[in-house]
Amino acid sequence: MAKELSEPKSRFLRACRRLPVDATPIWLMRQAGRYMPEYRALREKHSMLDLIGSPELAAEVTLQPIEAFDLDAAIIFADILPPLIGMGLELEFVKGVGPVIHNPIKTTRDVDMLAAPPAEVHLSATLKAIEMVVRDLEPKGIPLIGFAGAPFTLASYAVEGGGSKDYARTKALMYSEPAAWKRLMDKLVTVQADYLVKQAQAGAAVLQVFDSWAGLALGREAYLRYAAPYNRKLFAMLAGTGVPVINFSTGTAGALKHLRAAGGDVIGVDWRVNLDEGWATIGHDVAVQGNLDPVALFAPPKEIEKRVADILRRAGGRPGHIFNLGHGILPETPVENVIAMVQTVHELSAR
Amino acid sequence: MAKELSEPKSRFLRACRRLPVDATPIWLMRQAGRYMPEYRALREKHSMLDLIGSPELAAEVTLQPIEAFDLDAAIIFADILPPLIGMGLELEFVKGVGPVIHNPIKTTRDVDMLAAPPAEVHLSATLKAIEMVVRDLEPKGIPLIGFAGAPFTLASYAVEGGGSKDYARTKALMYSEPAAWKRLMDKLVTVQADYLVKQAQAGAAVLQVFDSWAGLALGREAYLRYAAPYNRKLFAMLAGTGVPVINFSTGTAGALKHLRAAGGDVIGVDWRVNLDEGWATIGHDVAVQGNLDPVALFAPPKEIEKRVADILRRAGGRPGHIFNLGHGILPETPVENVIAMVQTVHELSAR
Repeated sequence: MAKELSEPKSRFLRACRRLPVDATPIWLMRQAGRYMPEYRALREKHSMLDLIGSPELAAEVTLQPIEAFDLDAAIIFADILPPLIGMGLELEFVKGVGPVIHNPIKTTRDVDMLAAPPAEVHLSATLKAIEMVVRDLEPKGIPLIGFAGAPFTLASYAVEGGGSKDYARTKALMYSEPAAWKRLMDKLVTVQADYLVKQAQAGAAVLQVFDSWAGLALGREAYLRYAAPYNRKLFAMLAGTGVPVINFSTGTAGALKHLRAAGGDVIGVDWRVNLDEGWATIGHDVAVQGNLDPVALFAPPKEIEKRVADILRRAGGRPGHIFNLGHGILPETPVENVIAMVQTVHELSAR
Repeated sequence: MAKELSEPKSRFLRACRRLPVDATPIWLMRQAGRYMPEYRALREKHSMLDLIGSPELAAEVTLQPIEAFDLDAAIIFADILPPLIGMGLELEFVKGVGPVIHNPIKTTRDVDMLAAPPAEVHLSATLKAIEMVVRDLEPKGIPLIGFAGAPFTLASYAVEGGGSKDYARTKALMYSEPAAWKRLMDKLVTVQADYLVKQAQAGAAVLQVFDSWAGLALGREAYLRYAAPYNRKLFAMLAGTGVPVINFSTGTAGALKHLRAAGGDVIGVDWRVNLDEGWATIGHDVAVQGNLDPVALFAPPKEIEKRVADILRRAGGRPGHIFNLGHGILPETPVENVIAMVQTVHELSAR
């Protein structure tokens, strides 16, 4: 094990540790998803929560993109929101709407009523799916990524009752009831740290923390005051796992330094930033992941190739670049364009 | 007139030209809007398009916040989308949904079918409302702001058929059909330049161009390629009016230099940026407007005061700062907090 840690073979694991690679590794956020016909076929028969709640089905979905594309990592099929169910929130994925929480947090008492059960109580299906997928992927040398939402992003869903344009309720709570906000965030740190540690124990070789909305929702000062301290705690609690951690957010062009300071071995960069400038701001002593605009995959292959080449040029062949989209792949993405992109990344970056 | 241009009396007009002021001027994006009981009362009787389409009612709504608060500028009550009606798009404001365009642009032929009528054909009510409001405000020495949407932001509504999370259709058109995109943007430049010039002729003392979604939707390279050239054209066409122009967008933390290069006498800064850093990046030789988080107005008065003080401190008493929110005021904002904010801005910045 000690040997594996110091010199992993996988391109993806090597890039996480900024070791030289034969070609730039690539995986895609939401790579198991609606753009794949195999996935849509399963979703016709099963709800989102059913797929996540069945280790066999979640494992099957996780492996679909690995079979279809030449990807360098798998990510366990799950969602960032199910941990909220164990905390006492009624989560439903409503067709055409997205996630809805029927009893969102409205008062400081609601915050204090939230439970903080260990992951094996409500999230055992995901932990079991990880074990199954790892057994399957190990012979192929493909690592599996585990993941969870960061406290701010989870809190925003819990308070808004779903997605949001302005995060008004979340920020109102944050600004008006700072003590309750702290209790909420501390509880989320506890639940998420436990969940992530157990994903690593189940076999996840890398962990990604999705703070998807912190960058878009918060000003720089607000990020430092209301989100970053909890991310720092969370990342510190993951250090003991020994697995690399990816710190992902969006809308962070003005906050990349703070993102880096919060923690993570790899910093996710969204498509709004030029990768060379972003990496320089973050510092070349950590790895970066990104950052093709997901919508670029709707362009003709020639345009995709040009944009992939631009990102690789900006990464400059420096060890520690993981190719990815700047955010999740979109449901209507043409599969043939995904194939073209993956191939282009490997070909253009081959050394 | 020549004298007025060189040395206006209004705080707001002086700040636009970076002249010293007795106190920092303040106005609010969407200051005539749903958070005001006077506005809600009118909206119960009239649809959004009816209010905009009646010069008398639009003038009345424009003046509501001027009567209620100690604001330094009025902004004509209108919306960025009505120019699309004249171009042939069927716009409706649907309750609980927002703007919907029933025949969005889907093909390059749809682009070529768009009309480009002069503003007086379909937008005469707004031009008339401007004349009425200016007559009313002139004795009080309060200037009126005219406004329009920037080409990219308008194109995004025209292509998506309404608001969007990912701008996938807009960017797919942009990436896949660059020639049609250029024709669409050029047409929008023509229509919007004409509309803005006529607003200035009707008496608007300042013009604000809302490119609300360009910063959020586009990466830096994409902004330079697909949006900035058209903004540059538009701003050049407004130079002849002699009135200051405010260039507003959001999500621009990584693109402030490019925003400035596109044009404008005043650059709008959203709340995601620290104003001192933002202004330094933009350059102190242009004025800036911003940048309190609209959600901060849901905080207790003490917290609002602290945050106003922080923004004024970052502006550093330098001539050329216009206080505003980082984006439009939210519908549920408590009126008493608006009063407190306006007063705090004037008191803390009085020299």
